[in-house]
Amino acid sequence: MEAIKTIQDLIECYKKLPGIGFKTAERLAYATLHLTVEDRNRFILALTDANEKVQKCPKCGTFFDDQCPICSDLNRDHSVLLVVSDSKDILSIEKTNGYHGEYFSLKGTLSPLKNRTPEEIGIPQLKQRVEKEGIKEIILALPTDLEGETTAMYLANIYRDNPDVSITKLANGIPIGTDLEYLDNMTITSSLKGRVSLKKGN
Amino acid sequence: MEAIKTIQDLIECYKKLPGIGFKTAERLAYATLHLTVEDRNRFILALTDANEKVQKCPKCGTFFDDQCPICSDLNRDHSVLLVVSDSKDILSIEKTNGYHGEYFSLKGTLSPLKNRTPEEIGIPQLKQRVEKEGIKEIILALPTDLEGETTAMYLANIYRDNPDVSITKLANGIPIGTDLEYLDNMTITSSLKGRVSLKKGN
Repeated sequence: MEAIKTIQDLIECYKKLPGIGFKTAERLAYATLHLTVEDRNRFILALTDANEKVQKCPKCGTFFDDQCPICSDLNRDHSVLLVVSDSKDILSIEKTNGYHGEYFSLKGTLSPLKNRTPEEIGIPQLKQRVEKEGIKEIILALPTDLEGETTAMYLANIYRDNPDVSITKLANGIPIGTDLEYLDNMTITSSLKGRVSLKKGN
Repeated sequence: MEAIKTIQDLIECYKKLPGIGFKTAERLAYATLHLTVEDRNRFILALTDANEKVQKCPKCGTFFDDQCPICSDLNRDHSVLLVVSDSKDILSIEKTNGYHGEYFSLKGTLSPLKNRTPEEIGIPQLKQRVEKEGIKEIILALPTDLEGETTAMYLANIYRDNPDVSITKLANGIPIGTDLEYLDNMTITSSLKGRVSLKKGN
């Protein structure tokens, strides 16, 4: 027995989502047929809303349906700008409740090989915003791969001679609750390099 | 930052699917916003089809959008009926390509405690079909729990004095490729009870 067309279509849809392989997509497709009509209608409505109502904030790259929950928040610190390479990283930071500044989302990281130039990934817009809004600190939360590091260096270089703007990047090191034995050498080396003083000697 | 309404709606939808908890639903909801409008439209269309086109075969319980791929297949053996307690089990059997008879899907298994009577789960319809179609063998592929066993016994009892109908059930035993040390006692006991002769002695 071949799967019917609707099942095949649903499988194709679920397979587009990250981390969903064929087997899981198939399971989800059949489960979708087992939902009630109301639940499927709710699903259709949510997807329609995603198409029609949801926009990306032109300033920070966050998704919003009414107004950007970050840029419209007057209680935020407007002098700090956290830079990510993908707008979905904003959520991870927001969830910590530990950051109250603003965001800027680059379109990826610099990569000469993949033809991603500073203009391509939106560095001119970042510079413009830093200047216009009088940003005092740029926090880089970029990927820890070679391209992320290159982008960080590139940005640090731009503001090297500008005394008004400081640039920091998120600390690399041992994740909380992880045993050293499970960690890669790069992470351990980073954590050694970035070690923190607990008590100063002479 | 609170998640926007569309995201919350999508999370609720994904959470209805089996095996999807809050964390995964959240990940999938954001991934859905990152899909292209075309992909989301395809998703909406597949869900609409599921609502409007897909039906459950009144005879065997399989989902179909045009005609039941099993009941409309003339090459199948119409004298054998495999009974499942949930129509989604039909797919698992079909995938093996090792069964070419017909199916009947009960609505669950007998359970006096949960008020699931023979009438409730569709045993009268099963009996009717066996009689009308001249079924020669009923293969039970019911759950291996107490309620599944009870249902199997109940059905076996119905046809005890009927010489025209034989009733079998799927063999219990060691799954292929599994080590004995990882198996529960019940499975090992079943496999011992149902041991298969390789060579007959005196």
